[in-house]
Amino acid sequence: MPKQVDHRERRESIARALWTIVDQQGWARTTMREVAREAGASLGQLQHYFSSRSQMLTFAIKFAADQTSQRVTQGMAALDQPPHPRDVLRVVLIELLPFRPDARATSRMNAAYVLEAMHDPTLHEQVALGLRDGRAMVERLIRQAISDGQISPHRDPAIETDLILALTGFAPLLELGVIEPQAALAAIDQHLDQLFPPGGAR
Amino acid sequence: MPKQVDHRERRESIARALWTIVDQQGWARTTMREVAREAGASLGQLQHYFSSRSQMLTFAIKFAADQTSQRVTQGMAALDQPPHPRDVLRVVLIELLPFRPDARATSRMNAAYVLEAMHDPTLHEQVALGLRDGRAMVERLIRQAISDGQISPHRDPAIETDLILALTGFAPLLELGVIEPQAALAAIDQHLDQLFPPGGAR
Repeated sequence: MPKQVDHRERRESIARALWTIVDQQGWARTTMREVAREAGASLGQLQHYFSSRSQMLTFAIKFAADQTSQRVTQGMAALDQPPHPRDVLRVVLIELLPFRPDARATSRMNAAYVLEAMHDPTLHEQVALGLRDGRAMVERLIRQAISDGQISPHRDPAIETDLILALTGFAPLLELGVIEPQAALAAIDQHLDQLFPPGGAR
Repeated sequence: MPKQVDHRERRESIARALWTIVDQQGWARTTMREVAREAGASLGQLQHYFSSRSQMLTFAIKFAADQTSQRVTQGMAALDQPPHPRDVLRVVLIELLPFRPDARATSRMNAAYVLEAMHDPTLHEQVALGLRDGRAMVERLIRQAISDGQISPHRDPAIETDLILALTGFAPLLELGVIEPQAALAAIDQHLDQLFPPGGAR
């Protein structure tokens, strides 16, 4: 048992080292040697865990997804119970977008991963599956909100889901300082207010 | 004069070679040596034009921006004259998103550029300037449409501009097949229909 814990901790410390390097210089310039150095390991030790850059990225991104979902769970716990679907979507968007340092690190990892996935069939399948799962979760929430009269029954749930997903397009605009965080939040709030009219939709 | 033309053509053929390589294997794995080979040039010749990967990327992205703006101009010429601002925004979004092969190539270049810019101060400044110009153009169009009664005067032009920009978030979702092109188009149309109510806003 202690050995397994060590093993997991080791992998996590490597994932964090990878994030640090990617955050500093981008995935394109990240080598396994540098990640090993940052993690205080030898290249051989790193290769014991990951035989390729691609495998290392996959692990780091799964770890990033776990971190994001922990932040979402924490954000949801702070909401009124049961939470309003509008507030749930707002928490998810805030944790996916680079508003805070920890969300920024995971958002950059995601951007690198998505770009890499466009040219790597294995990563492509993994990232597409993850995004489809996320999309399906948002669509279920929207369909439920239509049933519950919180969203107008005239809205198309698939289109509304896609428009929510499009809001992740703020990530590069926030990263590059083209849009200020409070402006992005105001836009997200306005979009959600239109979708969930105050006082219900019926 | 012919020498200048040759020079420009040479740079363009290098830009196209770079796109091909980036399209095939991603920016992270692109080396100047491979781009030289694809362009039918020696590494030395390539280095005569660009002393670094970063400079090569900057040139290729400017060329990509020119290509995009040519496609937008062509798309606008096909509209009723003077064009309705809703149709102008639709043409711009369609040419920015990877709906067609040529737009796909420029969209991938842009994604690589934006990611690279997060870690490179010079690129950061360039890409942020370009995006701010684009944002300002969209905001002027929206403010004009409010003045002209095509958009409700109750809408906040800055927020509406940011929500239009967010629609570029469909790019990775289209690239990875998470959203089908017709679904993304339907979402764009619905967003534009809400912003520009048929028959005018007043």
